[in-house]
Amino acid sequence: MEFKTVTPELLEQLQAAAPGRVHTGEDMKPDYAHDEMPVYGQRMPGAVVECASTAEVAAVCRLCYDNGIPIIPRGAGTGLCGGCVPLYGGVVVDTQRMNRILGYDLDNFTVRVQSGVLLNDLANDCWEKGVFYPPDPGEKFATIGGNVAVNAGGMRAVKYGATRDYVRAMTVVLPCGEIVRLGGEVSKTSSGYNLLQLMVGSEGTLGIITEVSLKVLPQPKQTFSLLILFPDLDAAISCVPKIKMAGLDPQALEFLGREMVLGIERYLGKTVYPGQCEGEDVGAYLLTTFECDSEEAMDGLMEKAAELCLDNGAMDVMVYDTPEAIRSAWAVRGATLEAILAEFKQSDECDVVVPIPGIPEFVNYVVSLEDEIGLAVRASGHAGDGNVHVNVCANDMDPDEFMERAERFMALAYAKGRELGGLISGEHGIGHAKESYLEEALGGTVMNLMRGVKAAFDPKGLLNPGKVCGKA
Amino acid sequence: MEFKTVTPELLEQLQAAAPGRVHTGEDMKPDYAHDEMPVYGQRMPGAVVECASTAEVAAVCRLCYDNGIPIIPRGAGTGLCGGCVPLYGGVVVDTQRMNRILGYDLDNFTVRVQSGVLLNDLANDCWEKGVFYPPDPGEKFATIGGNVAVNAGGMRAVKYGATRDYVRAMTVVLPCGEIVRLGGEVSKTSSGYNLLQLMVGSEGTLGIITEVSLKVLPQPKQTFSLLILFPDLDAAISCVPKIKMAGLDPQALEFLGREMVLGIERYLGKTVYPGQCEGEDVGAYLLTTFECDSEEAMDGLMEKAAELCLDNGAMDVMVYDTPEAIRSAWAVRGATLEAILAEFKQSDECDVVVPIPGIPEFVNYVVSLEDEIGLAVRASGHAGDGNVHVNVCANDMDPDEFMERAERFMALAYAKGRELGGLISGEHGIGHAKESYLEEALGGTVMNLMRGVKAAFDPKGLLNPGKVCGKA
Repeated sequence: MEFKTVTPELLEQLQAAAPGRVHTGEDMKPDYAHDEMPVYGQRMPGAVVECASTAEVAAVCRLCYDNGIPIIPRGAGTGLCGGCVPLYGGVVVDTQRMNRILGYDLDNFTVRVQSGVLLNDLANDCWEKGVFYPPDPGEKFATIGGNVAVNAGGMRAVKYGATRDYVRAMTVVLPCGEIVRLGGEVSKTSSGYNLLQLMVGSEGTLGIITEVSLKVLPQPKQTFSLLILFPDLDAAISCVPKIKMAGLDPQALEFLGREMVLGIERYLGKTVYPGQCEGEDVGAYLLTTFECDSEEAMDGLMEKAAELCLDNGAMDVMVYDTPEAIRSAWAVRGATLEAILAEFKQSDECDVVVPIPGIPEFVNYVVSLEDEIGLAVRASGHAGDGNVHVNVCANDMDPDEFMERAERFMALAYAKGRELGGLISGEHGIGHAKESYLEEALGGTVMNLMRGVKAAFDPKGLLNPGKVCGKA
Repeated sequence: MEFKTVTPELLEQLQAAAPGRVHTGEDMKPDYAHDEMPVYGQRMPGAVVECASTAEVAAVCRLCYDNGIPIIPRGAGTGLCGGCVPLYGGVVVDTQRMNRILGYDLDNFTVRVQSGVLLNDLANDCWEKGVFYPPDPGEKFATIGGNVAVNAGGMRAVKYGATRDYVRAMTVVLPCGEIVRLGGEVSKTSSGYNLLQLMVGSEGTLGIITEVSLKVLPQPKQTFSLLILFPDLDAAISCVPKIKMAGLDPQALEFLGREMVLGIERYLGKTVYPGQCEGEDVGAYLLTTFECDSEEAMDGLMEKAAELCLDNGAMDVMVYDTPEAIRSAWAVRGATLEAILAEFKQSDECDVVVPIPGIPEFVNYVVSLEDEIGLAVRASGHAGDGNVHVNVCANDMDPDEFMERAERFMALAYAKGRELGGLISGEHGIGHAKESYLEEALGGTVMNLMRGVKAAFDPKGLLNPGKVCGKA
C-alpha cells in the first residue's frame, strides 16, 4: 500500500486542531510502536495526537484523510494482536484523554461515556452508583473504546455475555471526518442494518469510536465461589453442561489444569488450591462464581451445586463465601498470564473459541505439541463459553527461531480449532497478527465481503490499514 | 431501477433446479404479492420457487443473478412492513419447505434448523427436548428465517433479549449464488467484522438465510404473572425501573391502557381485568411474568414484587399463578391486534422504540393526535424495553384518504419518537414501507454507509430490491 507521510504543514494543521497535544519525533513515547505484544510492533507513527473531544478526532481525521495519511486509533494500548500498531506510519489518534463518564440514566439503565474511560474506572463508578457493568476482561486498564473495538469478553461472559451485549449506541468519527451516531439508548431495534454491532469488534478499521452508551444492570446481591476438583480435564469439562442445564447460571466458570495451577502457585510463592484429594492427584479444576438473592438462598444453591458436581465426576468441592476467600481463590486464575510471563521471556498466544465439549480435545492436543514444536505450551480459559487462551513460550531462544516455531504451532492450533467447529478469536481480536489465520478459516468469499464493508466506510483505506482484513 | 423479467428459458432452468416446485402465472397464490399488511403489497412476482435445500436456493440465485432478475426471499409472509413484496417482479424464493429441525447439541446449548421452520414448531420442540428457546414474537407462525431477518423481539425480550441474541451461526446464500457460513456454534467471538450480526435484521437484502444455529437455555422452573393496576400510564411506566432495579428480572413486562383493555374485552366478549379499584377507574395496567426456582421461592418473590409495586403507585396487584390463570391474563394482551382488526377495516402501524421513561409522553402524544388526524389511535406494547406498537385505524374511509392521513400521522409519530431518543422500529423492521422514515431519522451519511454495505454483498442490487435502504 502507498501512503503519504506526515509533512510539516500537516503537523501545523494538527497543532491548530489540538493545541499542545500533537507529538512527533523524540517527543513520542516508544510505546506507540506496539501494544502488549511487542513482538507484533514494527514501526513508530509520524505523529501522535492526544485528542480531547469528538470534534478534535473529526478534525484530525479530516486532515489526514484529505492528505492520504494513515489514521491509527489507540486507547490504552493493551491489545494482544497488534491492532494499534502503525504498520504504515501515519497519525495515531490517542483517545486516553477522552476519559469522562458523561452521565447515567438509571430509569433507562444506561451510562454514557467517552471512549477513553478505563474499564476499571467505569466498573467502580457504576458500582458506586448502585448499578453493575458486567463485562470484566482480565485487563482492567483497557479503555472502553478498546473493549468495544475487540468485543472484549472476560470471566462473566458465561452469564452476562461480552461487551457487544452492553453497547446501545455510539458516536463514531468516520475516516473522512464525518461524525455519525449509531444505535440508540434503547434495548431493541430493527431499524436498518445494524451498523452499531458492525462497529463492535471492527478494531478501529471502520471508524473511531468517541462516545459509547452502555447498558448497566442491577447489582447481584450475594456471590460465592466454588473450586471443583476433578481427576482430569475431560471430567471437568463434562460437568460444565450439567451445571448450565441445572439452571445454576454461574456468573463465571473457568478451567485450570494441574500444571498451570502449580506454575501459578510457584509464581505466587504459596499453595492455594488442594493438589490432592484422598491421595489422588487433582488433574483439573473448575472455578465458579454463583449469584443469589439472599444468605438463605445461598446455602441452598451452594448445596445443590456441590451435590451436582459430586454426582458428575468431581473429587471434592471447596467453598469460598467471604469476599476475602473469593478474592484469594480468583487471584490464582487472575495471575495466569503474569505467571507465564514471569517464567518465560518469550511468548506468543492464541485465543481460540471452540464449542464447549471440544475444550478437552483442543487443550490436550495443543499441550501434546510441546515436544514436537519445542516450546512450552500453557492453556487455560473460560470453560463456560469454550474460549481457550494458549500461550507458547520459551526463554532465550533466537527470536526468529521462536517466531518460526510459534507460527508452526499457531497453524496447527488454529487448524484443530477449526476442525472442532471453533473460531480464530473469542475476545482478543485479529489485529494484524492473526489476519492470515482468519483468512484461512473464513475463506476468500467472506474475507472479500469484509473488504467490501471496509471500503464502504473507508474508501481510501486510510483508517488503521493492514488490520483485520486489510493485508496488502 | 431496471431489471430483467422472467423468460421462458429461465423458467425452464428454474424447473431443472427445483423440479415441480416452480410456479408462475395463475399457478401462483395471490398472497405472494403482499405480507400481513396488504396495503403495502403492490405486485406479483414473475415466478415462485419453493426451494427445498440450500443448494436449490443457491442454484436459483445463480440463475437469477446471471440474468439480472430480482430475487425476493420469503418465509411465511407474516411481516408488517412489506419486506417480502416483489416491488420489481422477479423470482420469489419461498423457504417454507425448508422446515426441518436438524439437530440439538445439548452439551453446547444449540439447535440447528432450516430457516423455514416455524417459530411455534421450534419453541414446542425445544420444550419437549427439555430446553427453552426464549424469543416469542406475537406471531408464532413466522419462520425462524423471517424472525432472524427482522431481529424479531416479543414479550420476553425484556429479560432474554431479541432473536439477535440467540443466533450463533448461519448458512447464507449470497445473491450471486455462493454459499457462506457465518459465525460458529460458540458463544463469543472477536473474529473479524461480525457479518453474522449484520445479516440479522437485514431483511433479506444481503443474502438468503437457509440454516441457523440458535442458542437455547435451560427451562425456567416456575412462572407466575402479576397484573398491576395503576391510575394512569405515567404511574405505570414510573414503576418499571423500580421493578428492574430491584433485580426481580421479569420475563415479560407489558403495558396496556384502559381504552385498549376495554376494546379487547369487547372483542373477547368478557371482562377479564378489573376496571375499577375502590371506586376509582384503573387507567393503565402492567402485565408481568416472573420466574423462580421453586414453589417456596415463588411466594417470596410474589410478595416482594407486589409490595414494591404498591409502594410505587400501584392501586392493586392481581396474582395469576396457575397455568390456566396465566393463560387467561395473557390472552388479553395476546388479542390486542386481533381486537383492533375486528373493530376496524383499515389499519396502518408503527413500531417505535423509545427509552423507557419516554413511553408515557410518546403514547399520550400519539393518542392526542386522534382528532387532529381523524383516525382512531391504539397504542400498547413492551413496557420493559420501550417498544410501542401504534395502530391508526378507520372504517370505510376512502383508501387514498386513509393513506394520506396515516402518512401524516406516521410523520408526526416518528418525529416524536426521534425527539425522545427513539428508533424507527423495535422489532418489525423497515421493509419498503418505512424506508423514508428511516432515512429521515438516520440521515444521508448513515444511509449511504448502509448502501455501501448492500453493494458489498449484492453488487448488482438484485436481492430484495427497494427494501431497507434500497429505494430507487
